[in-house]
Amino acid sequence: MIQKKGLKIIPLGGLEQIGMNITVFEYDDTIIVVDCGMTFPGDDMPGIDMVIPDVTYLKQNISKVKAFFITHGHEDHIGAIPYVLAQVNVPIYATRLTMGLIEHKLVEHAMLDDVRREIVKYGTVVDYGPFSVEFIRTNHSIADAAALAISTPVGTVFHTGDFKIDYTPVFGDVADLQRFGELGKEGVLALMCDSTNAVRPGFTMSERTVGRTFDALFAEYSGHRIIVATFASNVDRVQQIIDTAYRNGRVVAIDGRSMVNVISIAAELGYIRIPDGTLIDIEELKNHPDEKTVLITTGSQGESMASLSRMAGGIHRKVSIKPTDVIILSSSPIPGNEKAVSKVINELSMKGAKVIFQDTHVSGHACQEEIKLMYALLRPKYAIPVHGEYRHLMAQAQIAQSMDIPKENIKILKCGEVLLLTQDSAEVVETVTCGDILVDGLGVGDVGNIVLRDRQILAKDGILIVVMTLEKYTNSLLAGPDIVSRGFVYVRESENLMEEARAVVAKVAADCFDRGITDWNRLKSSIKDELGDFLWKRIKRTPMILPIVMEVEV
Amino acid sequence: MIQKKGLKIIPLGGLEQIGMNITVFEYDDTIIVVDCGMTFPGDDMPGIDMVIPDVTYLKQNISKVKAFFITHGHEDHIGAIPYVLAQVNVPIYATRLTMGLIEHKLVEHAMLDDVRREIVKYGTVVDYGPFSVEFIRTNHSIADAAALAISTPVGTVFHTGDFKIDYTPVFGDVADLQRFGELGKEGVLALMCDSTNAVRPGFTMSERTVGRTFDALFAEYSGHRIIVATFASNVDRVQQIIDTAYRNGRVVAIDGRSMVNVISIAAELGYIRIPDGTLIDIEELKNHPDEKTVLITTGSQGESMASLSRMAGGIHRKVSIKPTDVIILSSSPIPGNEKAVSKVINELSMKGAKVIFQDTHVSGHACQEEIKLMYALLRPKYAIPVHGEYRHLMAQAQIAQSMDIPKENIKILKCGEVLLLTQDSAEVVETVTCGDILVDGLGVGDVGNIVLRDRQILAKDGILIVVMTLEKYTNSLLAGPDIVSRGFVYVRESENLMEEARAVVAKVAADCFDRGITDWNRLKSSIKDELGDFLWKRIKRTPMILPIVMEVEV
Repeated sequence: MIQKKGLKIIPLGGLEQIGMNITVFEYDDTIIVVDCGMTFPGDDMPGIDMVIPDVTYLKQNISKVKAFFITHGHEDHIGAIPYVLAQVNVPIYATRLTMGLIEHKLVEHAMLDDVRREIVKYGTVVDYGPFSVEFIRTNHSIADAAALAISTPVGTVFHTGDFKIDYTPVFGDVADLQRFGELGKEGVLALMCDSTNAVRPGFTMSERTVGRTFDALFAEYSGHRIIVATFASNVDRVQQIIDTAYRNGRVVAIDGRSMVNVISIAAELGYIRIPDGTLIDIEELKNHPDEKTVLITTGSQGESMASLSRMAGGIHRKVSIKPTDVIILSSSPIPGNEKAVSKVINELSMKGAKVIFQDTHVSGHACQEEIKLMYALLRPKYAIPVHGEYRHLMAQAQIAQSMDIPKENIKILKCGEVLLLTQDSAEVVETVTCGDILVDGLGVGDVGNIVLRDRQILAKDGILIVVMTLEKYTNSLLAGPDIVSRGFVYVRESENLMEEARAVVAKVAADCFDRGITDWNRLKSSIKDELGDFLWKRIKRTPMILPIVMEVEV
Repeated sequence: MIQKKGLKIIPLGGLEQIGMNITVFEYDDTIIVVDCGMTFPGDDMPGIDMVIPDVTYLKQNISKVKAFFITHGHEDHIGAIPYVLAQVNVPIYATRLTMGLIEHKLVEHAMLDDVRREIVKYGTVVDYGPFSVEFIRTNHSIADAAALAISTPVGTVFHTGDFKIDYTPVFGDVADLQRFGELGKEGVLALMCDSTNAVRPGFTMSERTVGRTFDALFAEYSGHRIIVATFASNVDRVQQIIDTAYRNGRVVAIDGRSMVNVISIAAELGYIRIPDGTLIDIEELKNHPDEKTVLITTGSQGESMASLSRMAGGIHRKVSIKPTDVIILSSSPIPGNEKAVSKVINELSMKGAKVIFQDTHVSGHACQEEIKLMYALLRPKYAIPVHGEYRHLMAQAQIAQSMDIPKENIKILKCGEVLLLTQDSAEVVETVTCGDILVDGLGVGDVGNIVLRDRQILAKDGILIVVMTLEKYTNSLLAGPDIVSRGFVYVRESENLMEEARAVVAKVAADCFDRGITDWNRLKSSIKDELGDFLWKRIKRTPMILPIVMEVEV
């Protein structure tokens, strides 16, 4: 079958999931890639630190791959860069703050000198073969966020990146709606629009409204130390806390490794303005009266190792929570983190602190009316919902339909699907390799499904190890069988059970020897079966059973 | 120290947590107990099925314990009864539906004939020594819920149980506000009031409002099969679904073990009215046109083994989701379940079904204005917030203060604290044993902190087992050391790492033998230390390391 000529759009992540955004654009012999993010492991991935995309497709087509274009500096868009660039080393294009955050990552991985980096401004157009990529100003919860207008021989594809429309942003200007309109007039073939908040009606509030909440809270609690926890990556939020602190004559300390990193990069590059004398070291907090201080910290999601959790648990080395403290959680719990956030609130409350978590956060993503605005300005022929779980993509599809995009022109893709786009067609023509690569410590990809399944079994009911030593030639039992367990029962209080289990194993072994079985795999599987049956009947548990046979020549 | 004489109130669960409600009331030689619930395990309790209260205190005072009084039939109030009654077998008092649900549990545990059960009506007063306990009608998300007015020599303690004020309940009447008022007039010493929703302003909507949503949705989707998922325990919700189905000429099938159980008990006892011919077996669904059927099912919390999850995953034996299906999630995600619920919504959407989850649920617990109503009617001298995490209890305390209860008369207790209450004092005088007993399969209490910690370590990075066989007298190595791992790395792709690990262990063993060490504990701990160090440096992981030495006499 001869494929039609056209633009191939291949998401290698970011669809049917939140995070790990990475999309391939391919035309003839040229590939460019938009974003290169990570995502957080699910509950079914114990021990995993981070999940990055499988870029086998890029490696297979490495000669075609020309560049990465990054929309903004959040982990779900830049987090996989060091891992992927180590395999596919091509130039990166990004705006200034975005690049600052990328460079910090590259330094951590000792890769800064190996990667070509190009800082672009809004309006910059970068050409690679058939592609021209224009960076266009949008709003998000971090400055310097860009949408990309990707011009190709079949037409222009507009990728919003993460966005919202903020008419009164804290840093910079409102999204470049005029340019959106101009592009729409010229003709947009396809719109790839952020679906994160597509299930929510209405408009996302301006970031500036949170600043007004801070003003009110600082006025109400003027006699107290104030601690604000928020996302390290939300530079505009931090700006507003600093502004309010300054207006109230308070000094500000910053805590939490990621917070310190992001803020120092943003400050260095001029994306955050800190009045002289306002920022102090956390060690100096004690030299100022409580009511003249603010501490900005990480841990608003209840992350167990983050600064706020350590304060709540009383194990922070530099800050002790006082009953007079007022703590503002300037964030919403990300789905899955609700219990952890509750735990931190409870612990802080038990220390007598006042915890405030209402009206202190706005989203960085567009709600339904903002998404409609994009369709109204750009009037694309095709809609390709991006960034979200299936239900979010479906919600975006419904919005697109309500904006007169014909149903057959709305393409909900799965990761790895190759959408072939021409001036008058859009269809999935094939599927390429894609998936999750798990990062655990320094290991990248060495934990897969088998290891994860073992971890889940171990977590649920623990392990019983059955060991015995046999004489190699006579098959006589020299030692054991012994049973060692971990994570199964508290052995000292379950002596009867363990004694019975040992008897079961001894009987299985004796039977095998009597029957002259010398294939230790048969012995092992008999032990697994019989001991497993016994434990299920006796106590309704299914621990991992691991028989180990050692052979000795006497 | 001679203690003052008075009423002791001892929560053995239910405070600083959601669920596992059980409270001891003690006066002289008489103890009565209110509720006996379970709670669900936290994320830090892998493999645990259920958590029940430690009732050591009851066992130590078994001759004093006279009876259990149960406020309503939900698991967090009745779930531990079979386990606790097996140790402290005294009569149970409860209203009819509550007792029906308790009896179902006792049958499952083959204890029905061993437990004395007394069904009471609203207004019934039960006397035990110094205590008179009156059951009073309240509203909740299950019928037959009761508050308890516990009259004692020092005064009356009013325990709300779980409650809301529903002026238009689906079954029965509005809470007995007149009796509340009368008791308040007579004088209430202390109010123990449900705090579950104390952080929420306003009033909880009437259960009947959900019925109106069902009416609207059934009208809108009159051409589709409708599947409604809700809590098995929410009998009134099921009643409303059946009513709406009947009005729309639809037949109803019920699926999910717990749903079938609860509904058959409720139907048998007359707490749910099912018009003749409306209820059909799930097998008969196929004999009716889709648009004339409703399926009511469990799994609204995304529980992986529940009926709706199995439909979503395509592994339900009797029901296949069709693209024309409309699925209503009539519940809110309980904190911690958000991701699981999202997963089910995504899976159902991918099968083309329409999933609806807005305006289809109301809470069964009182919000702030209803709680204020209780304080206004009862005018207690002391407030003892119950049912909730610390932040919920604190919120209740603030409401109590706003209702003119002096701060020093508001007592936020911890589990195990003994509050001594007299006519004019309330103070914590001592602490008794309390805590969580973990139920895992048939094992009750045989999994404790050590086993849980092991499970967590195993889940995070797996286990490496180092085995070797030694000659008993000469200390010579006969076999090994070998390393077997599970849940650590995918061994086939990490051969180098495992080879290096083996070399580390071999060297440690050789060193020990060279130095003539015959204490195998020293050998084992050297292996743990050295191999642990090596793995942390090499791959930044901390698996469990378990050295096993077998001794053989040659």
